[in-house]
Amino acid sequence: MGCSREHAEMAAKVFLAAELRGLASHGMIRIKDYYQLWEADRINTKPDIRIIHETPSTAVVDGDGAIGMIAATRSMEIAIEKAEKCGSGWVSTRGSNHYGIAGYYAMMALKHDMIGMSMTNANPLVAPTYSVSRLLGTNPIAVAVPAGTQPPFVADFATTPIARGKLAVAEKKGEKTLLGYVQDKEGKPTDDPGILKEGGSMLTLGGDYEHGSHKGYCLSAIVDIFSAVLSGANFGPFVPPSVAYLPVLDEKVGEGTGHFFGTMRIDAFQPADHFKSKMDEWISTFRKAKSASGKPAVKIPGDIEREKEAIIRKEGIQVIPAIAKDLKEIAEKLGIEFELKD
Amino acid sequence: MGCSREHAEMAAKVFLAAELRGLASHGMIRIKDYYQLWEADRINTKPDIRIIHETPSTAVVDGDGAIGMIAATRSMEIAIEKAEKCGSGWVSTRGSNHYGIAGYYAMMALKHDMIGMSMTNANPLVAPTYSVSRLLGTNPIAVAVPAGTQPPFVADFATTPIARGKLAVAEKKGEKTLLGYVQDKEGKPTDDPGILKEGGSMLTLGGDYEHGSHKGYCLSAIVDIFSAVLSGANFGPFVPPSVAYLPVLDEKVGEGTGHFFGTMRIDAFQPADHFKSKMDEWISTFRKAKSASGKPAVKIPGDIEREKEAIIRKEGIQVIPAIAKDLKEIAEKLGIEFELKD
Repeated sequence: MGCSREHAEMAAKVFLAAELRGLASHGMIRIKDYYQLWEADRINTKPDIRIIHETPSTAVVDGDGAIGMIAATRSMEIAIEKAEKCGSGWVSTRGSNHYGIAGYYAMMALKHDMIGMSMTNANPLVAPTYSVSRLLGTNPIAVAVPAGTQPPFVADFATTPIARGKLAVAEKKGEKTLLGYVQDKEGKPTDDPGILKEGGSMLTLGGDYEHGSHKGYCLSAIVDIFSAVLSGANFGPFVPPSVAYLPVLDEKVGEGTGHFFGTMRIDAFQPADHFKSKMDEWISTFRKAKSASGKPAVKIPGDIEREKEAIIRKEGIQVIPAIAKDLKEIAEKLGIEFELKD
Repeated sequence: MGCSREHAEMAAKVFLAAELRGLASHGMIRIKDYYQLWEADRINTKPDIRIIHETPSTAVVDGDGAIGMIAATRSMEIAIEKAEKCGSGWVSTRGSNHYGIAGYYAMMALKHDMIGMSMTNANPLVAPTYSVSRLLGTNPIAVAVPAGTQPPFVADFATTPIARGKLAVAEKKGEKTLLGYVQDKEGKPTDDPGILKEGGSMLTLGGDYEHGSHKGYCLSAIVDIFSAVLSGANFGPFVPPSVAYLPVLDEKVGEGTGHFFGTMRIDAFQPADHFKSKMDEWISTFRKAKSASGKPAVKIPGDIEREKEAIIRKEGIQVIPAIAKDLKEIAEKLGIEFELKD
């Protein structure tokens, strides 16, 4: 597609991380979307990613229409450089695109003994509390914290009760969902996972006002403001579609999709070894929690993905035939050799 | 109680802000708790609040056992000073106590044209997903963002579906609550607001795993780690009680209660006027959202408290007779003149 080898590898690493961590919804299945966006001239594979404005601890980065993974990796590198110099680094990025799994960028900080954070806005599918207007994305937040002998704490979650992908799976299977995920165009609760095609919307974390959906709305709004108002990207309903079959919006309020990244050096607060042993203590305290009757052991954020990765690294990544077919077609069009291992 | 005039005024301002914003559960009703903690020698009214470690953009502050409002106000001032110099400021505070409303400190940043953040850990009442162990507090998060002609965006929310205070009110009235707030000691859902006295626990935002309670657990855990592991305060189940009738815990893993504060100068990202006009645009986009049938207009975070403040400033603060009695008794013991206006 015209990417430099360096940029192609940056993007491939994020796709691969998603597959390894069991988040196939953010893995290879998206390559076709990216390819089609590029075909439609909506992704720039020779971007001039640059710092627009900065202070010792902050920066605005313009992704120049890059594949999200490339703008995001570069932005997180800048946040890490800033933390090395002055304790913390905070980067708001505009002119980007869909960036894959939020957790990947947060985890980039770990090997530098830093806490890492990452968030992004996304296509509007979610209605704020009391509303039926799709003004927000599933706007995920990721936070990674280094530990010592324990594995790191890695939280990575959409600010909706479930991810969009789970609705699509239920729809394909012809199944109903639980109540509390989506509403119809009037705002009535529904268990129809296909309701988004009929003017419905996703609910924010909490589900309804009585159960704190306004808190999920706050979280999603904070992600949107930090990612897009701080950087000068499109916010809320103006976030550009991450698939080529949806048209470019007539109205824009900024440049591309927005992300926000944060880093804090742990030794900017405590001696690193001390912090890590305290973090081990935190984790083992939570591991000792008593389970509710009939429930599994309490998990530490990151456990599930790490357990999946251990299995997938042994057994290999399963490629769904439909995805293999898509990838083969793209490879042929681009003149790339394509081979699928059994 | 021996506070300097400066410190007494710092604390009074936070109590007053809670009352004015309609959050009486964090206002005068707490003064008796603080007084009793002081009587029990569990609050230090002559604290030596100091920076233990710092970088240009970060600091750890030791509150030396101060009233939470005093340690917190001083910590947020330090975060603001750091942002003035290097774009952002991040302070983790230990050796503190209950600090009142999280939003007060976040809002301190607004007049400096900064985004403000504040969070705190709190008495363990909340069980992580799948568990019945009370390992987390209602751990609130507050974020304040300046706007131009629009009022500022001020989110301030506990990471549980509802605040602890609402359970207490339902219990006093002999009412049941909705399901999704608390569970019994086995982990079974219950509508009994008094269940916390029988080994029950509060649930995290999301309610159950199927509706994203693990995301609420992640949020609450992040607040705990940023507030206490970064600073060296007590974390999780070791957070000291904020009331004197609960004993000091035998085991401690750090100093007092922990908080975390953040500031980002808006002109560390965008020219301040440009940012504010974009924020106005964000807010007016959300104000135009279509309401679900039968629901009120969509709110911007901060609207409700500001509307309440407008009324309370006109009509005065209602003092419940039982609280007036408590305050009068404390005033008599301390030899302070006490007068209640009609």
